[in-house]
Amino acid sequence: MRFELTNEFLVKLRQAILAKNGAFVNEHFKDLYPPDIAEIFNELQIEESKYVYSQLDDQIAADVLVELDDDVRENFLASLTSKEIAEHIDNMDSDDAADVIAELPDNVQDEVLAQMEDSEQASDIVDLLNFDENTAGGLMATELIRVHVNSNAIECVREIREQADKVENIYAIYVVDDDEKLVGLLHLKKLIVSSTRSRVSEIYDSKIISVKTNTPAEEIANLMDKYNLVVLPVIDALGRLVGRITIDDIVDVRREEETEDVQKMGAMEALEEPYMSTPFLQMIRKRVGWLIILFLGETLTATAMAFFEDQIAKAVILALFIPLIISSGGNSGSQASTLIIRALALGEITIRDWWKIVKKEFSTGLVIGLILGLIGFARVGLWSYFISSYGPHWMLIACTVGFSLVGVVMWGTLMGSLLPLFLKRLGLDPAVSSAPFVATLVDVTGLIIYFTLSIIFLKGVLL
Amino acid sequence: MRFELTNEFLVKLRQAILAKNGAFVNEHFKDLYPPDIAEIFNELQIEESKYVYSQLDDQIAADVLVELDDDVRENFLASLTSKEIAEHIDNMDSDDAADVIAELPDNVQDEVLAQMEDSEQASDIVDLLNFDENTAGGLMATELIRVHVNSNAIECVREIREQADKVENIYAIYVVDDDEKLVGLLHLKKLIVSSTRSRVSEIYDSKIISVKTNTPAEEIANLMDKYNLVVLPVIDALGRLVGRITIDDIVDVRREEETEDVQKMGAMEALEEPYMSTPFLQMIRKRVGWLIILFLGETLTATAMAFFEDQIAKAVILALFIPLIISSGGNSGSQASTLIIRALALGEITIRDWWKIVKKEFSTGLVIGLILGLIGFARVGLWSYFISSYGPHWMLIACTVGFSLVGVVMWGTLMGSLLPLFLKRLGLDPAVSSAPFVATLVDVTGLIIYFTLSIIFLKGVLL
Repeated sequence: MRFELTNEFLVKLRQAILAKNGAFVNEHFKDLYPPDIAEIFNELQIEESKYVYSQLDDQIAADVLVELDDDVRENFLASLTSKEIAEHIDNMDSDDAADVIAELPDNVQDEVLAQMEDSEQASDIVDLLNFDENTAGGLMATELIRVHVNSNAIECVREIREQADKVENIYAIYVVDDDEKLVGLLHLKKLIVSSTRSRVSEIYDSKIISVKTNTPAEEIANLMDKYNLVVLPVIDALGRLVGRITIDDIVDVRREEETEDVQKMGAMEALEEPYMSTPFLQMIRKRVGWLIILFLGETLTATAMAFFEDQIAKAVILALFIPLIISSGGNSGSQASTLIIRALALGEITIRDWWKIVKKEFSTGLVIGLILGLIGFARVGLWSYFISSYGPHWMLIACTVGFSLVGVVMWGTLMGSLLPLFLKRLGLDPAVSSAPFVATLVDVTGLIIYFTLSIIFLKGVLL
Repeated sequence: MRFELTNEFLVKLRQAILAKNGAFVNEHFKDLYPPDIAEIFNELQIEESKYVYSQLDDQIAADVLVELDDDVRENFLASLTSKEIAEHIDNMDSDDAADVIAELPDNVQDEVLAQMEDSEQASDIVDLLNFDENTAGGLMATELIRVHVNSNAIECVREIREQADKVENIYAIYVVDDDEKLVGLLHLKKLIVSSTRSRVSEIYDSKIISVKTNTPAEEIANLMDKYNLVVLPVIDALGRLVGRITIDDIVDVRREEETEDVQKMGAMEALEEPYMSTPFLQMIRKRVGWLIILFLGETLTATAMAFFEDQIAKAVILALFIPLIISSGGNSGSQASTLIIRALALGEITIRDWWKIVKKEFSTGLVIGLILGLIGFARVGLWSYFISSYGPHWMLIACTVGFSLVGVVMWGTLMGSLLPLFLKRLGLDPAVSSAPFVATLVDVTGLIIYFTLSIIFLKGVLL
């Protein structure tokens, strides 16, 4: 029942298109949903999909256009006249229409808008284009069912019949007063179960959550989450009902946010476009910045090690364990910072919990440090016994490595957990305290811990 | 208009509770939504919230209970008799009811179910408890509006009136046949605009997307995403309609998945509970496993460096740049793996794109490597000029460091981008190729690149 795109089907479809076999297209496309058709079109050449388009119902064609990959849609629209684009736009919800138009070159935008049949929708779209895309105004659609608080149930039904053409799904009926101000919500269930003579004022719910046109997308996502909302009305500065946002618009917002967070945690600036369509220079710019900062931070390790050059000269063996020691600190720190960043993002913890977190991470770091320290100690011991490469003082070297690991892991864990809290306290995004960032911070201190302990254990023996 | 919890309000509320001031409670709680009230209860003592509970409407009280933090709810339920719990459960949707009951100790579960007034709901809950919580069966609620395909519009309205008590929001009306098999969907809009004499068979939509009780939660999330669905019907193995899943149930599924991904990318096993409520031993177990594996991998650096011990003894200066070189490879690799993991998760790329990705990452790695290599070269040069610490052959050392950086960064970028694809190809979760995992892999090869280049540049001079 569910659609899956196969190469076999694509081959057959291409043949049918070549042969202008409309029957094949109708037969295979009638049970598909727009997202399925978009999936197929993303694989076809423009000329091929144009033929299929011509066979589709107008409404479906418009829905498919909205679902296409950005670059495919761009190419496809470039192949249409502004009249053809206007016809598609006429069949879209205003929010999708505004998004599609915003992607067009400026001069084409004006031509398309001028060619639209529905001049009311054209003017709605022009209004929508003025809003910042990351606010309620930029996300909302203007199609909605509104009824006057003084009307009655029969008038409501008439109103719904009139507006039914424009509105695809009725999630809610909004109640407005004489000034078009939003005063409440009429649940469909209530309308259906009420007598036809009921007045809206008797059956509507005045308890309603709304957002302003300038409410940021992130706040809208949080509201819908917290209150389990599927649709949210949007009001202007005067409290007048101007649009509605549905949850599927918010899914995209949320996914973009998560992607930004993940990319920041990978030590780069968030990309503005999908991986494959990000231009080369932009890709470099987004990635090299943090790498340079981390690199400059990491040059401090060379400075720190210069202080211990004499020790390394006397006991070259110390150098062998440098990567092992500092990476263990970095790894345990990355782990801790990832945990804390995510817990902060989910609201499981707040900055006020910092002391509880310190206690928890201190003991966790101690236990993990002891485990890794023991393994490190055993590694040096076993190699000395079987391979005999670390000389007569292997026990002291093993102690240096083991205790350094305990210290470095504890330090890394504490730094990793406190850094996101510290960034948050400063009003910065905790996700910036990425694994590489924490690792770089811990590297310098890890070296100092290691060489200090080596002096304690090896003074007068190797040093 | 929107609620924000303040300390001031909490203080006043506590005083009102002490004074058993019901008027204060009613006044301040009547405009709040259940999630707001739950937020307040999460901060109160059980005895305090119990008083407020007693003042709330039964339906609201049940909704609040569902919204409470897990540990707060557990404590609260432990303070109630099974009779009281049963009363709350009677007011919940079946999916929430099953979730709450599943948290109770086994013996209490049976007592509560036995005490429920609505024996039909009790039996629904018992059925729901048998499903795996990560499948459609475990997520669905049984409350829904169903009409027979042979009924007419008037009968539909009557059916909705009868079922309205149980169903909070009507998202869809499901159409079934004689065998209770799901045959389609009746859009509310269609019902409202159709004549009351219309037969369901004439106005329903037979094109409907449904899932089976054993469909995994992740697949459901993807379906709702792709097809922009707000609600999805669930059928059993015989095609009979048994429940429905709404999008708010899926928001939690998606968030848990993201958390698991992020935690894996932080080089640990995913936690099963929130950070703060994860017991100490479980925390250690989830974190130390990967750290041990990474540690053992990293011990290879000590083995690799043993081969270059003579070189380090001759030119101690080489040791100074080890952390800088290997961390640059690790950082660029972490970045690349994060990008690819996320793009895979979003479906922006698939394994089939591997060659395109190699080309893209090769050139990106080359440019970033050249930039960092130049900075590294300059760093050595400047220090030699102003601080004069690297001796007469500083130029050769600068070349060694610079070219090593180019090689290590390119290698790190390629490994970081290919590893997630490789894991995916093996059927493993690409998120496992965490920043620390990639860094560890790149450390060993980074050392080999560095020391090999040092022989090329410094042979006969320092070595």
